[in-house]
Parts: sequence; structure tokens; C-alpha cells
Amino acid sequence: MRIDSRTVPHIAVDEQIPGIRALLTFRPETAGPLAALANELLHAPNSLTPGERELIAARVSALNDCTFCFRSHAAIAACHYEDEALVEAAVEDPWETSLSPKMKALLALAGRVQQSGRAVRAEDIARARAKGATDLEIHDTVLIAAAFCMFNRYVDGLGAVTPTDPAAYRERAALTARDGYAMSRPTE
Amino acid sequence: MRIDSRTVPHIAVDEQIPGIRALLTFRPETAGPLAALANELLHAPNSLTPGERELIAARVSALNDCTFCFRSHAAIAACHYEDEALVEAAVEDPWETSLSPKMKALLALAGRVQQSGRAVRAEDIARARAKGATDLEIHDTVLIAAAFCMFNRYVDGLGAVTPTDPAAYRERAALTARDGYAMSRPTE
Repeated sequence: MRIDSRTVPHIAVDEQIPGIRALLTFRPETAGPLAALANELLHAPNSLTPGERELIAARVSALNDCTFCFRSHAAIAACHYEDEALVEAAVEDPWETSLSPKMKALLALAGRVQQSGRAVRAEDIARARAKGATDLEIHDTVLIAAAFCMFNRYVDGLGAVTPTDPAAYRERAALTARDGYAMSRPTE
Repeated sequence: MRIDSRTVPHIAVDEQIPGIRALLTFRPETAGPLAALANELLHAPNSLTPGERELIAARVSALNDCTFCFRSHAAIAACHYEDEALVEAAVEDPWETSLSPKMKALLALAGRVQQSGRAVRAEDIARARAKGATDLEIHDTVLIAAAFCMFNRYVDGLGAVTPTDPAAYRERAALTARDGYAMSRPTE
């Protein structure tokens, strides 16, 4: 991942609020559905753990070179796994980690989706299914990967502020890992 | 655009329901936020007309080679503009049409977002602003383009059924142009 200096947003958002949260504050009408989608995909009860789903989000964000989302979701995944080194290795090169064969197949599927919907082949789905993934898990993996192709473009396309201090991501991550993406929590 | 034959979905969705609607039926928990997002971005009151916003969606879907979304949103845009030829020309090559300079600049911005959030340059934003786009219009253009990078991957990544008959898109488009993307309408 490239290390960003603080970027200057392309539109008049509050520069004191980092990343996507400044955009959500700027446009509350779209913030509601975006937060609800993130919460359902990443935090709500699911046969994939929150850590597994955050890892898919972090990996796709890294492939899209989106520093803010990559650092945010890697930090949240590390909270869930209680293992920063595993998450770092899994984002960089999942095949060489101790992740389950099912998770490796789902991360490979997510990587296809990151390229394009058209890049997904029947074999990618068959491999995930052979490693034990259900249709719902395949659905959610594809939608998480697709959603981060949106979130990453939203954040970088509007030049959202990207903090350089890893501590900023760690602090926020602990709250999100515990509470999810509900909009009721103050954004500061 | 490539002409697809009917595709076979990768997961066990109802094959009688075309495109994204079968996926929304399969997973109602994520369908709610997705429909609310589409409705706010494309149909709710806005200084960009519904036709302009549908055109951005259709153009991004064409760039992503997503036949279902391209045809759906081109048909809805044509309902709003009451001009199929203009929409077809604008999706293919907007610079040679009678669209406003502002719309051309916003479509160029959407094309950058389709490539990557990182591909957006300060000059792309400055040009849109110089042609009269507000910060809210720039925000919404970026988020529409980003959202269709999600919707397109969701539809093609799960192999959603893509009808080949243009009439199927026209009929549905008239309803969506009138009523928007609310979830209360039956999906058939």
C-alpha cells in the first residue's frame, strides 16, 4: 500500500472528520442506506464471522489501492481476530496463511469481483462451494467485494482525508468492531 | 455492448426473475439498503434530473460491460428524456451529443470513477465546477458512478439472468421511471 499524506477533499466537506465519515455527514440522505448496507454485510449475525467479512473488505480495498478503507477494515479485522500479523499477511498474500481453505476460496472469488463482475468464472464459484461455502456465503462475499468497489471509489474519488497515523485507525476500529456501523453513534 | 444469451445464475435464485431483482429477493436484508440507495441517487428530488442521473448510471454500466444494468438504465433514461436515440448516442459517445457542457463534464468524471477512485484528478472536478456543477452534483455523480461499479459487479459476479429481448427492459423501465426504486412494489 502507498502511504498517503493527508489529502485535500475535492468538495467542501468537514476536513476535521477523516475518510468516508466526512462524506456521510455531507450527504445524510445517502449515508443512511450506505451505513445500513455496511452493517448488514460486515457486522450483523452471519455464518461468516465479522473478522472474515472485514478481511474480505480489507483485501478488496488493498487491491483497489484505497488506503483509508484498507487501513480501517484491516484494523477492524485485527480487533476481531486479535491478531494484527495474521490480518496483514492475509491482505498481502492470503494463500500463504493459516486461513481455512474456504476463506482462501472466498478471498479468491472477491479478487475476481474486484477486477470485474465479468471476471467471475463458474470454477471460482465451484471451488468455494467445494471448500464448504454456502450460497449465502458466496452471495455475501460477492456483494462485500462489490460494495467495497463502491466505497473505495467514493472515498478516493472525492479525495477524502486519509490519516497517516496508524493509531487513528486502531482507536476507531475498536469501536466499530464492538458496535458496528449504526448511524446513531456520533461520527467524531 | 455484447449481446448476452440468458445466463445461468451462480447461486440458487429464482430464475424467473430477471437481473438484480432475483438477487434482492434472495437476500432481503441487503435489498432494503440497496433499493434505498438507488432511489435516493436516481429518483429522489435533485438538481440533476432523473434522466441525467440515469444516463450516468447507464454510461458507467456500459463501461463496465454489464448488459443487464446498461439496458435497464438506458431504458429508464429514455423514458425520462422521451428520446431513445439521444440516450443511445450519449452512452456510446457523450461528447458528440447535444447534452449540456455540465453533463459532459459530469459524465467524464463518472468515467474516471469507473476506472478507479485514484483516477480522479483535481482537473476533472475543476472542469465540472467550471461548467456549473455544484458540490452536491459532483458528490452525487461520484457516488452514482461508484454505486454502479457495485451494482454491475453484483449482477455479473453472481451471473444474474440477463434478458435478451429489449421489450422486457422497456416495460419495466416505464414503471421505474414513474415510481422509483421503492421496495414496496412487487418485483414481478
